[in-house]
Amino acid sequence: MTIRHTIKTEDYHYKTNIPIRFADIDAFGHVNNAIYLTYFEVARSAYWNEIIEWDWSNIGIILRNSHVEYLKPIMLNDEVYAYVRTSRIGGSSFDLEYILIKVVNGEEQICTTGSTLCVAYDYNAGKPVPIPEYQRKKMENL
Amino acid sequence: MTIRHTIKTEDYHYKTNIPIRFADIDAFGHVNNAIYLTYFEVARSAYWNEIIEWDWSNIGIILRNSHVEYLKPIMLNDEVYAYVRTSRIGGSSFDLEYILIKVVNGEEQICTTGSTLCVAYDYNAGKPVPIPEYQRKKMENL
Amino acid sequence: MTIRHTIKTEDYHYKTNIPIRFADIDAFGHVNNAIYLTYFEVARSAYWNEIIEWDWSNIGIILRNSHVEYLKPIMLNDEVYAYVRTSRIGGSSFDLEYILIKVVNGEEQICTTGSTLCVAYDYNAGKPVPIPEYQRKKMENL
Amino acid sequence: MTIRHTIKTEDYHYKTNIPIRFADIDAFGHVNNAIYLTYFEVARSAYWNEIIEWDWSNIGIILRNSHVEYLKPIMLNDEVYAYVRTSRIGGSSFDLEYILIKVVNGEEQICTTGSTLCVAYDYNAGKPVPIPEYQRKKMENL
Repeated sequence: MTIRHTIKTEDYHYKTNIPIRFADIDAFGHVNNAIYLTYFEVARSAYWNEIIEWDWSNIGIILRNSHVEYLKPIMLNDEVYAYVRTSRIGGSSFDLEYILIKVVNGEEQICTTGSTLCVAYDYNAGKPVPIPEYQRKKMENL
Repeated sequence: MTIRHTIKTEDYHYKTNIPIRFADIDAFGHVNNAIYLTYFEVARSAYWNEIIEWDWSNIGIILRNSHVEYLKPIMLNDEVYAYVRTSRIGGSSFDLEYILIKVVNGEEQICTTGSTLCVAYDYNAGKPVPIPEYQRKKMENL
Repeated sequence: MTIRHTIKTEDYHYKTNIPIRFADIDAFGHVNNAIYLTYFEVARSAYWNEIIEWDWSNIGIILRNSHVEYLKPIMLNDEVYAYVRTSRIGGSSFDLEYILIKVVNGEEQICTTGSTLCVAYDYNAGKPVPIPEYQRKKMENL
Repeated sequence: MTIRHTIKTEDYHYKTNIPIRFADIDAFGHVNNAIYLTYFEVARSAYWNEIIEWDWSNIGIILRNSHVEYLKPIMLNDEVYAYVRTSRIGGSSFDLEYILIKVVNGEEQICTTGSTLCVAYDYNAGKPVPIPEYQRKKMENL
């Protein structure tokens, strides 16, 4: 049941810093498994605001699923970045893919990969809606 | 990229209560997407202690991947239970599957399904080790 | 700048279980300092629902301050309970006091004490409001 | 039972950025009360590493108490900074004080103040130890 995620950072055009908190670290001394979904959330929030310019006053986004592959642990003092990209664009749904890397001696080491299936959602109507044209263009451009 | 999880609770033989905390709820008024991995962690910790009798002083368990399918949101006052089972047993690795349900008018509604790929791990040696026979038997029995 | 909290559990008439999660534990192997405020939140939520019968549809409650005294660390497998009481009742504000204990060999050991200054608050009007009479009576009775 | 914290940022000589995560926001749309202790932790970690140059391989630090005064709520998109200072230096213990501000139209608004009583601690010996001279000097200098 392994899922193959794209794991070449060359295929990504957006990258953002992920500050690690001491509270993210669990009793084993590395980032707790659940926190990676929070890192993905931090990453896509920045991606949507900076690149896609999602208009939150108009349409929300909900998640249908999340996947995480744990390759290397992340420690408190690691310098961590997230790559994010839209890997599939449907009518109202789209897939995001993520790579978390840490910088070790100037080189990037892949620590975690993952994906989330997202759906444009009208909270008032309580149902999915088409991805707006402006944001769809932004997703396609990158 | 949808993954089909087993979603019949009849196939599960272990069930444990998941207490919801106000701090689990996000700005949309329901449980934050990352917290479901914490609920899975609560569920498997109870399952391993009560059913599998994992001996933590001897061998640890690490995660290789996690999957979550969000079907219905969970709210603060929901009465939530997790079903857990071992769905595959390998040499040192095994798969766990989870179903989170809420009780509404006496009936169980499936809210979330998911799975984690787990590996028996020797932290001192820094490598995977075979699942101990005693715990393997326990996994098979249920 | 030490604050003296009441630390006799005899003075409290409400007690509720606090389930510990693995994710609450930090790199030092005990509950992270910030999580104690979440435990207080779990405790007062139960206290307000079960004893005070606060009507959330009508009036909210906000916090003005929080204090925590860390006496003994709490570990993953500890059996923990919270004592809660209303120690001061004003016009719109009131103080809650908390004691967290763990049960060791059948005896209660005090781990943490604390308090929060709470204010009955009308979110629509954006300002404090008097504590409703029904809930005030409940606070006084206990 | 109100505690007066120093609330003039002029008295502080260290300031660090606090990135807000969506997961920090609770059902009321602002940062959950417990998360402020995590922000203090982020702030003092940076302060100890950058200014005090605490040598973690040698001596740990534990908390005896924490206080938080909530003055203004912090929202997801707020630009937040923490001021930190050592306000008292004892033999093995010392007090830290914190101010969290948000920048609104180029001006700093105080959102939260707080303090923690910290103790230099030898985890191996299981007891408090004197603050090392080098770090004491650093504390005094600022």
